[in-house]
Amino acid sequence: MKTIALVTSGGDAPGMNAAIRAVTRLAYAKGFHVYGFEKGWEGLITNTFHKLTPRSVGGIIHLGGTILRTSRCDAFKTSEGIEKAARTLAENRIASLIVIGGNGSFKGAHALSKKTATQIIGIPATIDNDVFGTNETIGFDTAVNTAVAEIDKIRDTAVSHERIFIVEVMGRTRGFLAAAIGLAVGAETILVPEAEINEAEIVKTVKENTAKGKRSGIIVAAEGVRNTSKLAKTIEKETGAEVRFSILGYAQRGGNPTARSRLLACLFAEKAVELATLGKENSIVGIQDGRITHIKLEESCSREKPSNQQLVALAKALAT
Amino acid sequence: MKTIALVTSGGDAPGMNAAIRAVTRLAYAKGFHVYGFEKGWEGLITNTFHKLTPRSVGGIIHLGGTILRTSRCDAFKTSEGIEKAARTLAENRIASLIVIGGNGSFKGAHALSKKTATQIIGIPATIDNDVFGTNETIGFDTAVNTAVAEIDKIRDTAVSHERIFIVEVMGRTRGFLAAAIGLAVGAETILVPEAEINEAEIVKTVKENTAKGKRSGIIVAAEGVRNTSKLAKTIEKETGAEVRFSILGYAQRGGNPTARSRLLACLFAEKAVELATLGKENSIVGIQDGRITHIKLEESCSREKPSNQQLVALAKALAT
Amino acid sequence: MKTIALVTSGGDAPGMNAAIRAVTRLAYAKGFHVYGFEKGWEGLITNTFHKLTPRSVGGIIHLGGTILRTSRCDAFKTSEGIEKAARTLAENRIASLIVIGGNGSFKGAHALSKKTATQIIGIPATIDNDVFGTNETIGFDTAVNTAVAEIDKIRDTAVSHERIFIVEVMGRTRGFLAAAIGLAVGAETILVPEAEINEAEIVKTVKENTAKGKRSGIIVAAEGVRNTSKLAKTIEKETGAEVRFSILGYAQRGGNPTARSRLLACLFAEKAVELATLGKENSIVGIQDGRITHIKLEESCSREKPSNQQLVALAKALAT
Amino acid sequence: MKTIALVTSGGDAPGMNAAIRAVTRLAYAKGFHVYGFEKGWEGLITNTFHKLTPRSVGGIIHLGGTILRTSRCDAFKTSEGIEKAARTLAENRIASLIVIGGNGSFKGAHALSKKTATQIIGIPATIDNDVFGTNETIGFDTAVNTAVAEIDKIRDTAVSHERIFIVEVMGRTRGFLAAAIGLAVGAETILVPEAEINEAEIVKTVKENTAKGKRSGIIVAAEGVRNTSKLAKTIEKETGAEVRFSILGYAQRGGNPTARSRLLACLFAEKAVELATLGKENSIVGIQDGRITHIKLEESCSREKPSNQQLVALAKALAT
Repeated sequence: MKTIALVTSGGDAPGMNAAIRAVTRLAYAKGFHVYGFEKGWEGLITNTFHKLTPRSVGGIIHLGGTILRTSRCDAFKTSEGIEKAARTLAENRIASLIVIGGNGSFKGAHALSKKTATQIIGIPATIDNDVFGTNETIGFDTAVNTAVAEIDKIRDTAVSHERIFIVEVMGRTRGFLAAAIGLAVGAETILVPEAEINEAEIVKTVKENTAKGKRSGIIVAAEGVRNTSKLAKTIEKETGAEVRFSILGYAQRGGNPTARSRLLACLFAEKAVELATLGKENSIVGIQDGRITHIKLEESCSREKPSNQQLVALAKALAT
Repeated sequence: MKTIALVTSGGDAPGMNAAIRAVTRLAYAKGFHVYGFEKGWEGLITNTFHKLTPRSVGGIIHLGGTILRTSRCDAFKTSEGIEKAARTLAENRIASLIVIGGNGSFKGAHALSKKTATQIIGIPATIDNDVFGTNETIGFDTAVNTAVAEIDKIRDTAVSHERIFIVEVMGRTRGFLAAAIGLAVGAETILVPEAEINEAEIVKTVKENTAKGKRSGIIVAAEGVRNTSKLAKTIEKETGAEVRFSILGYAQRGGNPTARSRLLACLFAEKAVELATLGKENSIVGIQDGRITHIKLEESCSREKPSNQQLVALAKALAT
Repeated sequence: MKTIALVTSGGDAPGMNAAIRAVTRLAYAKGFHVYGFEKGWEGLITNTFHKLTPRSVGGIIHLGGTILRTSRCDAFKTSEGIEKAARTLAENRIASLIVIGGNGSFKGAHALSKKTATQIIGIPATIDNDVFGTNETIGFDTAVNTAVAEIDKIRDTAVSHERIFIVEVMGRTRGFLAAAIGLAVGAETILVPEAEINEAEIVKTVKENTAKGKRSGIIVAAEGVRNTSKLAKTIEKETGAEVRFSILGYAQRGGNPTARSRLLACLFAEKAVELATLGKENSIVGIQDGRITHIKLEESCSREKPSNQQLVALAKALAT
Repeated sequence: MKTIALVTSGGDAPGMNAAIRAVTRLAYAKGFHVYGFEKGWEGLITNTFHKLTPRSVGGIIHLGGTILRTSRCDAFKTSEGIEKAARTLAENRIASLIVIGGNGSFKGAHALSKKTATQIIGIPATIDNDVFGTNETIGFDTAVNTAVAEIDKIRDTAVSHERIFIVEVMGRTRGFLAAAIGLAVGAETILVPEAEINEAEIVKTVKENTAKGKRSGIIVAAEGVRNTSKLAKTIEKETGAEVRFSILGYAQRGGNPTARSRLLACLFAEKAVELATLGKENSIVGIQDGRITHIKLEESCSREKPSNQQLVALAKALAT
């Protein structure tokens, strides 16, 4: 009877619980034991886990966060930490470790894979959608919808006051969230790390829109892509428009997962358990061109996911 | 200067307005005139339309329903009706007619295509997701999420009262909605028109789940697939469980579109305007294997979309 | 050290968990033991309870349903059942029993009060808002908002199709839900049990509205107040309008409580624990004219809450 | 035939549209003309208005923002501006001016009242709830619920990461929003302008909670009440906990109004139109102790609404 271990790592994402439930139940049905390590890599270092059963993962499919809890674990960035985690896997005779997390977690998993015989399988779950090897990650659709709902509310006040709003959304170093959110809310300008737009161009767009009769506007910016407070002042000065800015913040990480985030969680879990049954390569699962797939863990970690600038361009073409 | 006409037909779906906005603005940018016919085919029969401009379609990307309104039009089912619509297209020199609707609307469009030289392009928008030639229709994701949010609420009371709930969702003659919703809410049983499940099997599942320690349950049924009121009584009698049933109803057709329904609307509109620019075949646009595509209108109308029984099977495997 | 017992009874209502949390923590801070009986009166008959502590009621303030579960208990309607419950209270030396529920639960509590020395305190929690002695019950505001959000979605499709919708909402034998919901959605007609409206009048209102240029409409009906399916047909026949009907159903009972339902839960709990500390009369707590109050349990059970027909009249005056 | 004028002023609040609809329809039914001035006081200075009719205010009861638009108008702070507005009222023979807004708007209205014979009636609509003479303003309940829903999402990630979150909510110079939101989300500490809490006390509460076994926490702060970024660092340093902070921002001003905000809008409008019919004193309407009331405009402007520190105390007692 093989034992599978589960861990959620890095920033939490809505749908992680749906993935925990699906992995546990499918693995259990195949006769595996399932151990859930707590608090991300920390649980592997401290050997802290509990057994998961079909009953213990009941009633969680719709809940945000992760019942296994998670952390950003500094100790795991040292070779001592990684070796300790590898010993934990060996001591508990873990055949396959399923890591539910994002890019950073998979890099950690890759480092661990060099020190352990345990098979490692990644399930991409991060609101940032920045994992190479999958078009979409668990949680991304939820975060997009959360932000869109917030900005729909901001639009009410933008229109009533005839204001321009600059809204910062999450996404770390990538613009996947900003692009999808910006297109869905009808943003005039989307600012992403992958493409530079200078202030003059932003100001020009605002002026053109005003000339066309638009009396309010939304600019969506990936967090940290530029100084939005300063940008607001520049636009005010150059165009005479009232400009406000808002940072959406941590609410984007939480909340009940959307149907799509749950669906991906179920499908990714199914593939991950299938790979665990085969027991071979270290992999991450994903969805590519509408199909559930998997690639080597190493490949995912060594390549950068290409950006989708066509969404940004389409949003600009549409917000006229 | 070519003229494009737009019409929304059949049952409304969230995201239709986002598609109207996107078609109008992209077509306008290419120098087309855009006419919006009112109330579905009825507007083509009565020659009732107004000009759409980038400004007149502002502030609607996030709104459910359709600003062009829609109808199920009996007159259009007669050859007189279709010929009258064809004359309307000719009189107004419509180069391309873009029909935003579902299966029934495309069958009507196909009948019309035989009487007119106007190019006809379909944009699939229906909560039922039953259009051949696209994996997903505009509005489907919204309806799924609306139903999932409702059933999440019903689960609260199901768990508190330790009850089984049978919930009827929409979907007409197909089980796409029921399958996606059922998987996302963790339903024990999903009843779809494409696969028969007898009462004995449903009762057996309830009994097995009770034996495993589950104290509540959700059965998701496509509307009309069977007499759920009678089914409720049978389950009560056979298992001793309290059973309630609920019909989700028309709220599934409305509400602000999700990000994904808006995104599909934008992408479908882009492809439709591209096809209108080429001005050739009667087509419907769609998304297949993650790519925006198009197939012949005739092909879409003559074939039946295959069902996704693997979601139903996966849901069953997961609800243990 | 006194012991307080808690039970949730009858239909569940959003905010019950917030009340359980608040009672437990406030009572615990005063040095009481707190026992939570399970599954409503059934737990008192079977002597099934567990100890509640500040930690065991953590993380539930925002959850619908009730962690103590509930039931409609037939055994409690017999004198044997009531006597058994009274013995449970005596055996466990329960000083005060706090019953979180609605009208029916309080009638049961009143019957129990005649057989026990334990003080009984009612906290009104029911979506129906039909408890004498309080302007508002825990859960009412949530159910109203759930229904309003649903009908806002139905309005999208009503407007797009130019239809009349008849929507049945909950409320058992009283029209509090229908009146508040109808006013908030701008319903043309509200049908409540407390006031009869004949079909001719409803038809007349639809005709008048059509004459004024209204092209869609919402009629809100308390569940069971009349045959809405038949009413739909009559309106269709008499006015030529398309009419559809929808029953909102059990989702109204669930979902995360609104801020107001949580606030009432906290304030009612505070008063209930204060009454338990005094340890005197059997009472129910409530809010009257903006103040937290209490009246005798007997009085609440023997009188009928007056209806608020002025909301119905105001809704009618506004929907012109 | 008397003419009533309507204006929305200051920050927008959800439910303003419901109030515009209700005032217009009720006034129209009494035979009044109704003029809607645009963009707050600016419309009175520039004499910009349009006639409102029962049809022109249809379909807006559920929409956030204000169809009359609003502004913070500097010109109205000068005596020239006020005199210009008074002339606009005289020229258009406005019998009663109904101002839908908050504290600042009423101060402006009071200044205007000294220069005009037009009766001025205030309808309190502001998310801040800081108007003397009413327990609750239109929009307050919506803003509370929006913030509570956001913080429920933040709690998911707080629990998963075992973090303390400091969340800034709106409220300008008053703590009404923070108190209601904090109680409803189960905040450990609520920071309001009306009561000072020093850092040592906040740190002590975090330490005590950790000692009790709480592994996450929420601190709700009224915007600007203190440097929350600095506070986060202090707590991190003193307790070792991970602390994050988030500013909820402008989304709190928008969104569909809750049922309660719509209900208040309808009831306040009814009273305002009644006062306009009487045509006497300058007043603001309100709800006090559960009853719709009115007080003199001057009184509302000259007194400060008392704070509700008991909610803050209750929240603290409950979050143990």
